[in-house]
Amino acid sequence: MEKFFYPQTVAIIGVSENPANLGRGILHNMLQCGYRGKMYPVGPRGGNVYGLPVLKHLEEVPEPVDLAAILTPARFVPLAVEDCGKLGIRRVVVESGGFAELGEQGRVLEDEIKDLIKKYQLRLVGPNGIGVINMEIGLGLPFSQLCPVPRKGQISVIAQSGGVGMHVMAWMAKEGLGLNKFLSLGNKIDVQENEVLAYLLDDPGTQAVYLYIEGLADGRGLLQLAQQSRKPIFLHLPNVGAETAAIAMSHTASLASDERVVHAACRQSNIIWINSQADFLIAAKLVGQPPVKGNRLVVMSRSGGEAVVAAYGCRRWGFTLPPLKPDLAQFIHDHSRSKIIKPGNPIDLGDIFDFKVYTEVMKRLGQDPEVDAVLLNYGPVYDPERHEARQMARALVAQSAAANKPLAICVCATLEEEDFLRETLGIPVFHFPGQALRALAMSRIWSNRPPSDTPADPGRWFDPQAVAGTLGAQTADGFLDLANALTLIGELGIPVAGWRAVGDSQKAVEAAAALGYPVCLKLAAPSLVHKTEAGGVLLNLNSSDEVSAAYDRLTALAASALPPGEPWQVVVMSQIQGGEEVILGASRDQSFGPVVAFGAGGIWTEVLEDVALRIAPISPSEARRQILETRFGRILAGVRGRPPADLEALSRALAALSHLMLEFPRIQEVDLNPVRVFPGEMGLLALDARIRVQSLKS
Amino acid sequence: MEKFFYPQTVAIIGVSENPANLGRGILHNMLQCGYRGKMYPVGPRGGNVYGLPVLKHLEEVPEPVDLAAILTPARFVPLAVEDCGKLGIRRVVVESGGFAELGEQGRVLEDEIKDLIKKYQLRLVGPNGIGVINMEIGLGLPFSQLCPVPRKGQISVIAQSGGVGMHVMAWMAKEGLGLNKFLSLGNKIDVQENEVLAYLLDDPGTQAVYLYIEGLADGRGLLQLAQQSRKPIFLHLPNVGAETAAIAMSHTASLASDERVVHAACRQSNIIWINSQADFLIAAKLVGQPPVKGNRLVVMSRSGGEAVVAAYGCRRWGFTLPPLKPDLAQFIHDHSRSKIIKPGNPIDLGDIFDFKVYTEVMKRLGQDPEVDAVLLNYGPVYDPERHEARQMARALVAQSAAANKPLAICVCATLEEEDFLRETLGIPVFHFPGQALRALAMSRIWSNRPPSDTPADPGRWFDPQAVAGTLGAQTADGFLDLANALTLIGELGIPVAGWRAVGDSQKAVEAAAALGYPVCLKLAAPSLVHKTEAGGVLLNLNSSDEVSAAYDRLTALAASALPPGEPWQVVVMSQIQGGEEVILGASRDQSFGPVVAFGAGGIWTEVLEDVALRIAPISPSEARRQILETRFGRILAGVRGRPPADLEALSRALAALSHLMLEFPRIQEVDLNPVRVFPGEMGLLALDARIRVQSLKS
Repeated sequence: MEKFFYPQTVAIIGVSENPANLGRGILHNMLQCGYRGKMYPVGPRGGNVYGLPVLKHLEEVPEPVDLAAILTPARFVPLAVEDCGKLGIRRVVVESGGFAELGEQGRVLEDEIKDLIKKYQLRLVGPNGIGVINMEIGLGLPFSQLCPVPRKGQISVIAQSGGVGMHVMAWMAKEGLGLNKFLSLGNKIDVQENEVLAYLLDDPGTQAVYLYIEGLADGRGLLQLAQQSRKPIFLHLPNVGAETAAIAMSHTASLASDERVVHAACRQSNIIWINSQADFLIAAKLVGQPPVKGNRLVVMSRSGGEAVVAAYGCRRWGFTLPPLKPDLAQFIHDHSRSKIIKPGNPIDLGDIFDFKVYTEVMKRLGQDPEVDAVLLNYGPVYDPERHEARQMARALVAQSAAANKPLAICVCATLEEEDFLRETLGIPVFHFPGQALRALAMSRIWSNRPPSDTPADPGRWFDPQAVAGTLGAQTADGFLDLANALTLIGELGIPVAGWRAVGDSQKAVEAAAALGYPVCLKLAAPSLVHKTEAGGVLLNLNSSDEVSAAYDRLTALAASALPPGEPWQVVVMSQIQGGEEVILGASRDQSFGPVVAFGAGGIWTEVLEDVALRIAPISPSEARRQILETRFGRILAGVRGRPPADLEALSRALAALSHLMLEFPRIQEVDLNPVRVFPGEMGLLALDARIRVQSLKS
Repeated sequence: MEKFFYPQTVAIIGVSENPANLGRGILHNMLQCGYRGKMYPVGPRGGNVYGLPVLKHLEEVPEPVDLAAILTPARFVPLAVEDCGKLGIRRVVVESGGFAELGEQGRVLEDEIKDLIKKYQLRLVGPNGIGVINMEIGLGLPFSQLCPVPRKGQISVIAQSGGVGMHVMAWMAKEGLGLNKFLSLGNKIDVQENEVLAYLLDDPGTQAVYLYIEGLADGRGLLQLAQQSRKPIFLHLPNVGAETAAIAMSHTASLASDERVVHAACRQSNIIWINSQADFLIAAKLVGQPPVKGNRLVVMSRSGGEAVVAAYGCRRWGFTLPPLKPDLAQFIHDHSRSKIIKPGNPIDLGDIFDFKVYTEVMKRLGQDPEVDAVLLNYGPVYDPERHEARQMARALVAQSAAANKPLAICVCATLEEEDFLRETLGIPVFHFPGQALRALAMSRIWSNRPPSDTPADPGRWFDPQAVAGTLGAQTADGFLDLANALTLIGELGIPVAGWRAVGDSQKAVEAAAALGYPVCLKLAAPSLVHKTEAGGVLLNLNSSDEVSAAYDRLTALAASALPPGEPWQVVVMSQIQGGEEVILGASRDQSFGPVVAFGAGGIWTEVLEDVALRIAPISPSEARRQILETRFGRILAGVRGRPPADLEALSRALAALSHLMLEFPRIQEVDLNPVRVFPGEMGLLALDARIRVQSLKS
């Protein structure tokens, strides 16, 4: 990626003197950004644009070209790419639209370009993107006008959509958020987001990445990158539903993601999921600030009302307002005009007109290990105060940096001060206390993120050969028969209620006696996916007579309900008392691969959708976080004197299931429903298992 | 209130030539706003400020004064108020601080002023506020500089805190939201929010009200005003918790509200609860727009990426994107440059360069009764388009008004266009599609609000005399004994499981036989508040022997656990099978008065906090909305083939309880826990009742 961001010579292909020519826009932005390398506009009609001669052919460029930006009509793009290839140019950015996003004809063009990429060993960004920016060297390849040109800073942006990218950069400029690098992926026929992200996560100039994406090339790869990252990644992925699927397909030919899976991946890898550009602009204001280590906040406010609003923000975003240290309270008291009330937190500085008090307060807060962050509601009330207030703000920012104590500044009432602070102090400011609190909370969550999960060796969980043997029983697409499914689950180390598969009524009675009463009987057959609904599960059988009668009922059901000739069997299982019902499951996502699910049984799943997912593989500690993410999981952990359930056993089962999915790609889906989990260290028992596998051939 | 907002002569008391004098600020704002009446600055040192002579005494004003604004040090305020009184000035605004918010000394000053208010029959706004604004006549009384002066518009603001008020007005000006009237309440020793609100709800210039308040004077009155209102009220009430209570007390001497009760009141009266000024600024952008009648939205977008973002917003904020009518789709197709893909919704207009297409599309959408609202992602991409794009925006705004079809405009990429649209078209614009969707959703909820509840005559619900008789059994503070509590509940028309109060073991056995087995026995005594936890409830008794033994156990418990001499009794009750457990309750809120509660039983209440409240009285239809607000209520209503529970009976019980609280102020608290509700029309049964009453004297 280095050559894309740090080219020393750039050719811009598709420039003409025509005022409507879009290639001119690229030149304009390069000049605006102050590009430090050499650039060569190229266009068949020649001429002169912004004082630069337009070369008629690419080969007229007098020196080796590091990067070519192409903005010709789509049908000429393959030619231009071929020219680049022939001349040994290895980095190409295609900004033209009119490819796969417009249907079949465009897809054919893309295939042509893909062949050229292979033939000439090129790397290509786009097509249908808006180019690359690097504020470090003044590289500004978008054809749309950068207005205003963003300040150089610490945040880099990867945006699949050029429009969204331009919009967010304009707002970053307006909000005082500095840009470091930008890349617009477009239809990404070659360079994908993960490659760019990996580069930026290593890039010294980048401290955080905003990633706007409409279709993930490789969710699993993104997850792994994020797990290694020490820089926050803000993921904006709106294409997660029926509402967005069609328009995203016609825009950048992107496939929709499963929102629940993406959210799980974010939690698991500490990606910061954002719902909108507005969310990002709030959170990003604390990038580069010291980490918010805990939730103990002190608010300094010139306005009492804004202090109340800030205190409400603390309530909403999980901050506490510890009382001031006595000496600090005394100090403030001594400097207040009224000298009547005892200063609290928030500190209402409304009647303190000496701004030196603020810096002294900040100094003491900076030294106090029991204060995690400071919020300043800044706002000079009267014109004559303005100069001194600005000096104070400058001093506080310096103190915050020196003491490594995060400081959020919210500008109240006098909005022209926002511009001053942004421009002179070079820091973004917040518009309202609630937004500052929200950003502080996001920063706190990031600073206190759990360490990356390190799932153990699968060998620890089960014997792969035994599992492979059991799995071998099913060679075509479809479900494992119940006996094999239960066997396989047992092989994973997940305890299953005692069971026997039997072929006649007498065997059923013997099995029941061996297992001990009460028992239940289950009819199992490939076409009988929902046993219970079909009447194929008979519960609470207490005697040999009941078992024998039940067997006969299942025989009759098999005769009436199954396709003629379909093999079936009956499983006798111990009827388990007590415990709480949960569901463990696993499936495969097109982008993230194997996924494991934990959910509460019954109405909790149906009505409350109380399910948490994780991308496999996971360790038991990650599984425990997964379980505790659900409401039912928190109930299982023990509330109001209820004994906690055996979360340890549950976590181990989820981890084992996750490794199973990883080791055996044939397995498409696992459904353990229900599983009973018992209190204390009494473990769990799976009562049923459905396992769907793909045929060996496919 | 009229005279506060429409004074023809204003005296400003506390003005001097000193540049640090705050009274000068009032004059400055009056001049800036272009006040159309006459104003007289008054100050003991005389002089001349902004070309106006400063009168040394109030009596020098040569004509009757409608309104006096006072901004002297606090200790001189009573004198100034007295001067006003003597001269027959009946409307006074006190902007000085230094009163109850600073403690006892200030409270004494307030009391002095209150006496003067009574003595001279004055009305007074403040103290410790920032005054009154009326853009209709250029009245601008704040002493802080209005910068910029807001545009005259349709939104009025009531703000207890001057700082928050100034801040929100500055942002309204920045966002193009027009201001109509403003009043800052401060410590509100006389004029309260409800009086101002009532005036504004009747005021033709006001179409919506933003109410920032730190302590509600009369929540119940606010509820009633809101129930009558045809204008949206945005309530910003941050003082709802431990975090805010102290600072709000020291700021405006305000008491905290119970957040759950306030939220209930908002739902019940269609007040729009907002968490922050930022929320208000988003929602308010659609004030004055046609109502959003349904959730069918069409998105027109120049950027494909912003179209995806908008579609995500639809998903998040409950809008659908119906397919375009075939003729409209064909029309767009015919005008697209690529002519390849079929236009969908969102409409990606990225390759349509003729802006007349936009107006034709808007025309057809305006006429389509199956489209409820339109979102335009506005953003000319190239400089030469700008002029035509602006013409188009102007035309669309006119079309929206003519067709009475709401139109939200989001400005993408080129932010300088925001200013143009705001200033030239006089409409606010959105920064991001998600914000537009959120505002459209809030407008949709408001437009589809349920009609105001009209609780029926309490006589319909129960015989007040019978209830009064039962209630009379308890004359001191404390709980009704169990027998009286169960009797009272029965008198409300809420069915109670069969029960008898008995005094000996033999009577218990007789009662059990009469009620039918199984039964339970309950020990009831004034000091035994939590019967079950104390072992005072014995369940599932199936025979006379068990009943008799249980009676003896309760006798022993009474002897060991109750204070010596305390009277007790035993209640025998039918043991009820089946049904779902819920809790009905009632209590009193300091500001809103009687409140009824519905909650799920057991773990749902404990862990999920699945409780909904309403301010009494309520009708059964309001009670049904209350029930359905809880997750458990939605389960009771029937999910996935479960039979629905008797919500009718539950709703009637809640309505009856609400009227009980209203009719009998002595009742402090009612707790029916559990109540079993049965499927279909099988009603419900209360299994226990606790009723706490106040003594007759207090």
